[in-house]
Amino acid sequence: MTFVTRWLDDDEQHAWRTFGLATRLLTDRLERDLLTAADMPPTYYELLVLLSEAPERTLRMSELATWTNSKPSRITHAINKLEQKGWVRREHCADDRRGWLAVLTDDGLAALRAAAPRHVASVREHLIDLLTPDQLRQLADISQVLLDHLTGPRSDRDHLTGPRSDRDHLAGPRSDR
Amino acid sequence: MTFVTRWLDDDEQHAWRTFGLATRLLTDRLERDLLTAADMPPTYYELLVLLSEAPERTLRMSELATWTNSKPSRITHAINKLEQKGWVRREHCADDRRGWLAVLTDDGLAALRAAAPRHVASVREHLIDLLTPDQLRQLADISQVLLDHLTGPRSDRDHLTGPRSDRDHLAGPRSDR
Repeated sequence: MTFVTRWLDDDEQHAWRTFGLATRLLTDRLERDLLTAADMPPTYYELLVLLSEAPERTLRMSELATWTNSKPSRITHAINKLEQKGWVRREHCADDRRGWLAVLTDDGLAALRAAAPRHVASVREHLIDLLTPDQLRQLADISQVLLDHLTGPRSDRDHLTGPRSDRDHLAGPRSDR
Repeated sequence: MTFVTRWLDDDEQHAWRTFGLATRLLTDRLERDLLTAADMPPTYYELLVLLSEAPERTLRMSELATWTNSKPSRITHAINKLEQKGWVRREHCADDRRGWLAVLTDDGLAALRAAAPRHVASVREHLIDLLTPDQLRQLADISQVLLDHLTGPRSDRDHLTGPRSDRDHLAGPRSDR
């Protein structure tokens, strides 16, 4: 049996190339903005957000690796850096002597709160405010299809992509409150 | 005057988080597939594609940097690696003594042709074939909006995102030919 390649037709190729280039340029731009505004790479920002949303502002290192789709060694390295800045401290798991927890400190929460407005402004400027409400819905639906495929059915990642009340310091005040 | 943060509402936050996570997982997955199938990081693949589509299979190093949105030092490093593999050779610009050209070799074109079917299959599996024709159009339109914003109006990048006849070795045979 031979492997027959189904090449991309013109529309598919256009969609793929446009999407690939746009997402890469967007990622680069958001990273540059966050570094300029808060001297913080996106990886750090994301870890601080995850910890700020967790009960007791605490997560296992292994959970951070899973939720950021990162190798454990990369998380260990990042958490070491955050510990040096005084934004995170590490503690032994009470119920698992080999396990480590990462805990967001008050200084870490303050750093996140200082960075959040500039990051949100950047996400608005380069993504959200460029799109119509229809396009925003389409983008969410398309992304959900990809996510379901890449991670299996909606599951324990749901809390990472949906709004949640205890994320209000990042979601911010809304007009209807 | 104070800086008033327009926080993301629930729909905006959901779209942003879903999109951000989906694109990162997709990028990681395509990279892993390409490394497994062809032992080639996406950066190398992209450079080979750009060269394969250029007249005389030749581009200035500065053009490669612009079109891949990369720092010149990163391109120099990647082209050195590709040169070691025998896939690219460097030549002086005839009309600019300080400039360097990168030229795709026959071996480089062969490596690209060998990698292309697996890469296209991967792009199909994890993106294209998951979406309806409507969603594919929506994704292309949304991506074009982002691209116009991030690069200025459509211009010399058009040839990177649209289909072109001399890219047929990658676009592949179509049913209507």
